[in-house]
Amino acid sequence: MRLDVVTIFPEYLEPLNVSLVGKARARGQLDVRIHDLREWTHDKHNTVDDTPYGGGPGMVMKPEPWGEALDAIVESGADDARPTIVVPTPSGEPFTQEIAVELAEKPWLVFTPARYEGIDRRVIEEYGDHYDVRELSIGDYVLAGGEAPVLVMVEAVARLLPGVLGNAESHRDDSFAPGAMADLLEGPVYTKPPEWRGRGIPDVLLSGHHGKIARWRRDEAFRRTTANRPDLIERTDPAAFDKKDREMLSILGWAPGADGRFGRVAPDVEE
Amino acid sequence: MRLDVVTIFPEYLEPLNVSLVGKARARGQLDVRIHDLREWTHDKHNTVDDTPYGGGPGMVMKPEPWGEALDAIVESGADDARPTIVVPTPSGEPFTQEIAVELAEKPWLVFTPARYEGIDRRVIEEYGDHYDVRELSIGDYVLAGGEAPVLVMVEAVARLLPGVLGNAESHRDDSFAPGAMADLLEGPVYTKPPEWRGRGIPDVLLSGHHGKIARWRRDEAFRRTTANRPDLIERTDPAAFDKKDREMLSILGWAPGADGRFGRVAPDVEE
Repeated sequence: MRLDVVTIFPEYLEPLNVSLVGKARARGQLDVRIHDLREWTHDKHNTVDDTPYGGGPGMVMKPEPWGEALDAIVESGADDARPTIVVPTPSGEPFTQEIAVELAEKPWLVFTPARYEGIDRRVIEEYGDHYDVRELSIGDYVLAGGEAPVLVMVEAVARLLPGVLGNAESHRDDSFAPGAMADLLEGPVYTKPPEWRGRGIPDVLLSGHHGKIARWRRDEAFRRTTANRPDLIERTDPAAFDKKDREMLSILGWAPGADGRFGRVAPDVEE
Repeated sequence: MRLDVVTIFPEYLEPLNVSLVGKARARGQLDVRIHDLREWTHDKHNTVDDTPYGGGPGMVMKPEPWGEALDAIVESGADDARPTIVVPTPSGEPFTQEIAVELAEKPWLVFTPARYEGIDRRVIEEYGDHYDVRELSIGDYVLAGGEAPVLVMVEAVARLLPGVLGNAESHRDDSFAPGAMADLLEGPVYTKPPEWRGRGIPDVLLSGHHGKIARWRRDEAFRRTTANRPDLIERTDPAAFDKKDREMLSILGWAPGADGRFGRVAPDVEE
């Protein structure tokens, strides 16, 4: 996979040399190219922003440098290569694990992290007419720029590429991963020693009984999900819950409503 | 504000030397200390992980190095200083702008980005008994570690500190910022030139009519929010919508339901 990033802070992308993504680059699985947007400016101050039309606070990124940068990057690809352009923006569609899976199947992603109030809209429209442009938001908070979101999205995508994830890591049981634990948060994990600062580990984990361990983990996942992400339970098709799931949900103060979906009925049940 | 980060990839935190956070550090507004977790290991391989109790794939971070690291950091503070410990985890409570505002009021944050399947649960329980421990998730996707989320959270918090945000940036009109645009995504922005690649800018932005410009921006915010984040409109108290908001929502195919809250009634209305 080829990844291009255009930014006014190339040094912010240093983490792409580290850990999982860094190793994937070293192995040739990822071809990452970081570009300084200011290379495509032509004034002596390398200006990339100007005041917004219509007034108001903040600055807007000028269309010309972005246009020249994107043209140069697109032209550097093979004749028939068409990148997917990913625009990190708080106004975008939420970036989810599903979208990470989708992006991991693309041969070429170009990221355009902006600063200030964002990029002149015409850039998005111009490239949107010719390429697959995805405006994506990593969450409901305000950042200083799109560089941190690029690190997040690249990491989420890169770990899904074949051969990138090492043995110490795993896709199975991930929160948000498709499969048995989809839409449930992972519960607690433990490793040696069996006692630490007077704290032991749950007996069931030493039982060697795989069925009981799996059940305990699923119950703990329900505990955690109902506490931290009730929305995930509320939106789950209740057909996904087996008899023991329903028992656990009942213990946690949840019950099916008129439409069969589960909702919290006893808000004060202890987690 | 003091910020400590404990990680096995200190170099991943290099972006904290850059841009807004880097400048705040240089000005002495932020005291950022990055610690290598392996400093608190005592075997020759500097082991930080081990297999999970109960079996299964992946590795779990051992409690001892985390315990020693956190003790050392807490002891390095003033006698009565009590840090808030922020644990990035996909199983946590969602990190939102509200939480960023809350964290920005704390004098001292300690971040514990984990790798692999996470940190032995007893560490969270042990420190949770004595300190304010916040387990936070930046979004519904799977990453290789908590370092990228730390960059995200530190940036979101740092830009809220007094004097950190420069003139080129602004809190007003931010998507997710409290105020008039709360729960609405920002619409398009434009700057010079007035024509770029055959594309002009909306006439209203040149009108000089502040009221019309504000209304246009709000209408565009409704367009974008209904398209990308219908959930934000659905959960908004309809008392927040004025007559013109309601007209715009109607044009976009939305109407109030039995409870007064707005929902999409014409799913195929063009955005």
